[in-house]
Amino acid sequence: MAEKSEEPAKLKEKNGHITMLHGAGGTVMHDLVKNYIVKYFGGASNAEVPLEAMDDAAVVDGIVFKSDSHAVKPIFFPGGDIGRLAISGTVNDISVLGAEPFALACGFILEEGLTLFDFERILASMRQACLEAGVYIVTGDTKVVEKGSLGGCVMNVSGMGRRTPALEHNLAVIRQYRSDLGARWMLDSNLRVGDKILLSGTIGDHGLAVLSAQEGLRFGSDIKSDVKPLNRMIQRLLGEVGGTVAMKDPTRGGLADALHEFTEKSKLGILLQEDKIPIRKDVRAACEMLGLDPLEVGNEGKIIIGAVPAKAQEVLNFLKGTPEGKDAEIIGEVTRDFHGVAMQTAVGGKRIIARPIGDPVPRIC
Amino acid sequence: MAEKSEEPAKLKEKNGHITMLHGAGGTVMHDLVKNYIVKYFGGASNAEVPLEAMDDAAVVDGIVFKSDSHAVKPIFFPGGDIGRLAISGTVNDISVLGAEPFALACGFILEEGLTLFDFERILASMRQACLEAGVYIVTGDTKVVEKGSLGGCVMNVSGMGRRTPALEHNLAVIRQYRSDLGARWMLDSNLRVGDKILLSGTIGDHGLAVLSAQEGLRFGSDIKSDVKPLNRMIQRLLGEVGGTVAMKDPTRGGLADALHEFTEKSKLGILLQEDKIPIRKDVRAACEMLGLDPLEVGNEGKIIIGAVPAKAQEVLNFLKGTPEGKDAEIIGEVTRDFHGVAMQTAVGGKRIIARPIGDPVPRIC
Repeated sequence: MAEKSEEPAKLKEKNGHITMLHGAGGTVMHDLVKNYIVKYFGGASNAEVPLEAMDDAAVVDGIVFKSDSHAVKPIFFPGGDIGRLAISGTVNDISVLGAEPFALACGFILEEGLTLFDFERILASMRQACLEAGVYIVTGDTKVVEKGSLGGCVMNVSGMGRRTPALEHNLAVIRQYRSDLGARWMLDSNLRVGDKILLSGTIGDHGLAVLSAQEGLRFGSDIKSDVKPLNRMIQRLLGEVGGTVAMKDPTRGGLADALHEFTEKSKLGILLQEDKIPIRKDVRAACEMLGLDPLEVGNEGKIIIGAVPAKAQEVLNFLKGTPEGKDAEIIGEVTRDFHGVAMQTAVGGKRIIARPIGDPVPRIC
Repeated sequence: MAEKSEEPAKLKEKNGHITMLHGAGGTVMHDLVKNYIVKYFGGASNAEVPLEAMDDAAVVDGIVFKSDSHAVKPIFFPGGDIGRLAISGTVNDISVLGAEPFALACGFILEEGLTLFDFERILASMRQACLEAGVYIVTGDTKVVEKGSLGGCVMNVSGMGRRTPALEHNLAVIRQYRSDLGARWMLDSNLRVGDKILLSGTIGDHGLAVLSAQEGLRFGSDIKSDVKPLNRMIQRLLGEVGGTVAMKDPTRGGLADALHEFTEKSKLGILLQEDKIPIRKDVRAACEMLGLDPLEVGNEGKIIIGAVPAKAQEVLNFLKGTPEGKDAEIIGEVTRDFHGVAMQTAVGGKRIIARPIGDPVPRIC
C-alpha cells in the first residue's frame, strides 16, 4: 500500500486508545493534537498562520480558514442545537483572528432513524444563525451511518474569512501604542506585559445547559446556552474602538484552557481578579452543587480579549453597550514573572489556575 | 428560541426518517439535498457557483470551496482507508472544476476505543495522500463520541482551490471551437451536443473493494480501491491538451448517477457505447455474482470528462499515457433528442440507464 513507507516502524508498540478526554479540550486533547496531528501534518505548508501555530484558525493566501466538527449530545439543548452551534463555532473561530467570514460549507453525518422533522428543525436553526452572522452555506455533503451513539447527527462546518477595514483600523490603533506588533492578525501570541484581559460576558452557561439536557437536571432556574455568532460585534469593536491584540472563544475547557493557550503562545503570565469574572448566580450554584469549576466549563457565545492598556476601558465600554457584551468585565492582565495563569482570589490570596485535563462536561460541542 | 420563526408551521406533519439511502448518492439523496438543504440554504449567497448549482464544489470570490464528510466502513479496506479517501475526495471535487487545491482542513470525529495505532495509520495515510496531491492540511478539529456504529471514526475534509494557467489554457482551447462558453470553470452544465464523454479508467473497483471488506468476501482475485488524488493529472491535461468542458468524479451512485448529473444540468442526453466502458473482468464477474450493476457502483480515483469533439482523441491519448488514466476510453457522446442517459449495448440494442435510487453498496465513502 502506498502509505506503508510513511508508517514509523515503532507504531506497533503503541497500545493506547482514544478516550472521551481526547475530545474535551485541555491537556489530553492538546497532547493528541501536538503528538499526532501536528506530527503528521505540521510544517508542511507555507501558510501565514500554519497548523502548528494551533491558533483558532489558519491563514493561507490572505484567507482565514477553519473547520470545526460538532458532536454535541443531545442535539437539542436549552438555548440552541447542534446546527446553531456548528455555524456559531466556525464563524467565531474565524472572527477572533479579526477576519469576517464570507462563506461556509457544511458536511452532515446523519444517523439512520433521525426524523426529517428534527433534521428540518436543525436546518432552520442553522439558517437563522447564518442570517444573524450574515454569512451563507455555499457547499456541503451528506452521509448516513447506522443508528449508534451519535444521538441523531454530527456535522462539520468549515469557513473562509477575509481581512476587513475594521481589522486594519484595529491594527492602526495598536501601532499608536506598540511599535513591535509584527502580526497582521489577532493571534494568541500577540500579548505583551501589561495588556488587559477582558471577558465579554458570563461563563459556564453553555456547558451547564448541555449538562442539564444530558442528565435531565433542573437547576431551579433557566440556564440557557449562550451559543451565538459574534462576528458582527467583533467587527464593530475593531472598527469603532480598536486596540485589541488577541481574541479567543473559551469553548471546551472553558476560560482556564483558553487563557493557558494565551500564556503558552505569548510566553507570559496572566493574573486574574476573581471578583471580576462574571458568572450567573444560578450557574455558580449549580457548579458548586456538582463540584465543577466554572472556569473549566465551555462557552459558545463569549470571547476573551487582550487589549492594549490605554484602550481597555474603551473596549469595555463598547462591549457593555452591546447585547452580546453587556456583562463584560476587565478580568485581569498580562504579567511577566509567572508563565501561567494565576488568580487573585476575592478573599485576598492567590490561586494557581492549572490547565484543565479536559472539560468536565462531555460532548458540549 | 431564535429559530422558532424559521420553522414552517406544517413541519409537525412530517413523520419521515433518515435511511441509509439518504446518504447513498442517487435519487433519494438528491431529493433530500434539493428539498431540505437547498430549501434552507440555497439562493442566499452571491457565489459565482452557488449551493443551488449542486456542482462538485462552490466558487466564491474566485476560490473553489468544498467540504466532504467521509463515513466509509470499514475504515481500512483493500487499497486504502478513510484518511486517503477523505483527502482524495475533496482534492478531486475541487480539481474537477479546473482548480488546483491549495489548502485543506480536517475535522475528525473519533470513536472512544479507536486505537492510537489505527489513528496513526490513518494520519500517515492522509499525509501520504497530501504528498501525492501536493496540498496540505492547515487547520482542523477533533471530537470524540462514545463507541457506537461509526466503526472507529468519521471525518470531514474541506478545501480551497484556485485558478491556474492550465485552466486558462483549457478555456482558450475550448474557445477555438466554441464561442458561447460563458463559464470560467468546468461545470456540469457546460456540455453541448456532440461533445465526447471520456472515462479515465475502470469502474466499480472502489465499491467492490469496500464491499469485500464489509462482507468478508473474496472474489478470487485482488480487487483494490482506486482511491487517489487526481489533481496533478487533471492540471497536466488542462495545460498540455485542453478542450475539456466538464469533469466529474463518479463516486456514490457510480457512472450512472454522475452522467445523470451531467444530462440534468446541461439539459441534454448522453449515449454510451457499452463495449467501450472499461471494467475489470474480476469486477464484472463479482457484480454478476452479486446482482450489482457496475454502472451504479462508486469509484474514488476516476473522472468522467466532456471534451469538445475535435480534442477528444488527443485527450484520450494523453490520459492513456498517465498511470491514472492508462485504461481510459471515449465511452459516448452528448445527444440532443433524449434528455437522459442511454446505452448502445454490445449486442446492438439500446438500453435506458435509469438514475440509480442509491449506490447498491452502503457507506463506500
